[in-house]
Amino acid sequence: MATVRETPVAKTTSASAGGFTVVAESIEVDTAERVEIVDLTDTVMKFVRASGVQEGLLSLWSMHTTCAVFINESQTALEADIKTFLEDLIARGKYYKHNDPAHSDCDRQNADSHLRVMLLGHSVTMQVSGSELVVGRWQRVLCGEMDGPRTRTIRAQVSGLSR
Amino acid sequence: MATVRETPVAKTTSASAGGFTVVAESIEVDTAERVEIVDLTDTVMKFVRASGVQEGLLSLWSMHTTCAVFINESQTALEADIKTFLEDLIARGKYYKHNDPAHSDCDRQNADSHLRVMLLGHSVTMQVSGSELVVGRWQRVLCGEMDGPRTRTIRAQVSGLSR
Amino acid sequence: MATVRETPVAKTTSASAGGFTVVAESIEVDTAERVEIVDLTDTVMKFVRASGVQEGLLSLWSMHTTCAVFINESQTALEADIKTFLEDLIARGKYYKHNDPAHSDCDRQNADSHLRVMLLGHSVTMQVSGSELVVGRWQRVLCGEMDGPRTRTIRAQVSGLSR
Repeated sequence: MATVRETPVAKTTSASAGGFTVVAESIEVDTAERVEIVDLTDTVMKFVRASGVQEGLLSLWSMHTTCAVFINESQTALEADIKTFLEDLIARGKYYKHNDPAHSDCDRQNADSHLRVMLLGHSVTMQVSGSELVVGRWQRVLCGEMDGPRTRTIRAQVSGLSR
Repeated sequence: MATVRETPVAKTTSASAGGFTVVAESIEVDTAERVEIVDLTDTVMKFVRASGVQEGLLSLWSMHTTCAVFINESQTALEADIKTFLEDLIARGKYYKHNDPAHSDCDRQNADSHLRVMLLGHSVTMQVSGSELVVGRWQRVLCGEMDGPRTRTIRAQVSGLSR
Repeated sequence: MATVRETPVAKTTSASAGGFTVVAESIEVDTAERVEIVDLTDTVMKFVRASGVQEGLLSLWSMHTTCAVFINESQTALEADIKTFLEDLIARGKYYKHNDPAHSDCDRQNADSHLRVMLLGHSVTMQVSGSELVVGRWQRVLCGEMDGPRTRTIRAQVSGLSR
């Protein structure tokens, strides 16, 4: 059963009252591999700085069941370890009812993708302070494509007290 | 050690100032199985539409350590895959100190439930835009009962700029 | 690649407009073991009560890639089960590229820590109601040190309608 909003999510929104502002934008991410990790940090930091919100919250939401948003260090070696870990834990080739035409009308054979993203998470909610994202020295905001290649939509919304 | 608020959480709350509104409600969910997935999307969407909040955030919080709130597609085949995955990863019958009277005064034998919900998560924080929940085509908001049957409480709070 | 804010996160911040308040504080946590679970609930509850925010949201954010923030019951037996589960699932001694000098310049041998925190999560976003944190009877807010001993920074931010 698919979720149907009555109206599609607007590509950008902006609203303000009493010093409180909400600004949102849909970010498109093109992936090239079935499993791929894309670093969104600079894009998101730029969006936060441009929003005018000084102190508040940033929500990043993947609009897909098989595409994750999560935090980790960005390093080629660690990304390889993450991919190996996910394949060992949730093997693509195992039997899943979701991949079996006797039980499912999904033809993408992506049960592993659903389970992997369920563990990594579809969203992060972060703090904004001094008009910048609150992140530690090694933390990067990552998009985890688990059933690409595809064009994915990540919605970013920042809200809080503005300048 | 149990957490004790000085006062119980109110069943419903509502507050507004300067165009900013916070509305919250406790949603009760009755489960029939030990492990069961309940689709909350329509209930939550209805709550958001009724709140009057146009642009903001929705927090869904399970009030229990052994009941999850998470995102996935709602499909019978996939739900079976999720249950199989959790039982394979965190077997109910394994030895756990939490289930051993020599180490624990918990008599529910539910260490597996605690570990499973720790992975799925107790909450989701979502965006609201145009007075509707921001969700992708296949995303559903799911309650993951891991130690039922029971009556569970999920608290929904929506906050942001109102009409 | 490390994330660099242009200015460091302030140790405390406070801002208000139109009845809406944002208050934030960096909480330091000293850990004594490589893997250790620290209960933050009382510290966070005290911060929320002191903030003046009545109805709103609390964000807790670990500033580290190898230190988690998550929810569970606080019990010695269950903490032992969590540690055993994590070691069984993501063994410290396995081969990881992140630990191999041929692929990585990280000398902490902490790939397991990165993967464990990726599953537990770096943050929780909770509700505040009646000037108190919304938590269930057995829920505690836990800090999961996965590469200690160290001094860790957890940033707490509460926002919403104030008294």
